[in-house]
Amino acid sequence: MSDSEHDWPRPEEETESETVIDARTARNNPEVADAVAKIAALRQSIDNVDTAIVSLLAERFKYTSQVGVLKARAGFAPADYQRENSQIERLHRIAVEAGLDPDIAEMYREFVVTEAKRRHKRIAEAGGDPGVLDVFA
Amino acid sequence: MSDSEHDWPRPEEETESETVIDARTARNNPEVADAVAKIAALRQSIDNVDTAIVSLLAERFKYTSQVGVLKARAGFAPADYQRENSQIERLHRIAVEAGLDPDIAEMYREFVVTEAKRRHKRIAEAGGDPGVLDVFA
Repeated sequence: MSDSEHDWPRPEEETESETVIDARTARNNPEVADAVAKIAALRQSIDNVDTAIVSLLAERFKYTSQVGVLKARAGFAPADYQRENSQIERLHRIAVEAGLDPDIAEMYREFVVTEAKRRHKRIAEAGGDPGVLDVFA
Repeated sequence: MSDSEHDWPRPEEETESETVIDARTARNNPEVADAVAKIAALRQSIDNVDTAIVSLLAERFKYTSQVGVLKARAGFAPADYQRENSQIERLHRIAVEAGLDPDIAEMYREFVVTEAKRRHKRIAEAGGDPGVLDVFA
């Protein structure tokens, strides 16, 4: 799991084999035009989901930065593996219920927890002073 | 960006310096007890955010797997860098508006796009047959 290496060319490696969906191809083929229209509708839904998730991530990092300040002031370590294990189990269960590959939920958890810890550590190193908080944290 | 290496011990490397928030410490110190209560409340909000995000990720991967099938059938490449660039700009803007570090929004985007492409590639290799779709995709 958590195999997140890129096995796909990155944007800067764009090659000629790249097929961008274009209007010209679509005009000449009704089946392609239909696919293009369906893809456009799905992309709008994907964008809406991303807006919701980015807004929720903003709230999540506000909460975790508050936790970071409280932990640093009370002298608790940034990491808490008991909490982490219960999150792993919880997200696995919720993912299965929602029809999401639990590996994706675990990758999401690793991503947010790693970033939250990185910020907690920074807060602790600065003595838990919220004045030094990243404006975005 | 996208520096996602772990600079923090992983769960399996747990050390003695680890401080788990425990009831015993809290009982002997009202200030610590207050911090523990506040952390518990924040964690419940964090869990609620995670439930919402995992549910939205489930929907997002359902949408992208539909896009994957449509692209494979129409002979489009899994990647579309024009779309990707507009997503990068869009998420950066939304993150700033929401008060989220735009680097986090970009890490989120890389994570979901990498996983979606991995699945699209799998669909294309199987000839775009939705019958071969991962049950979770």
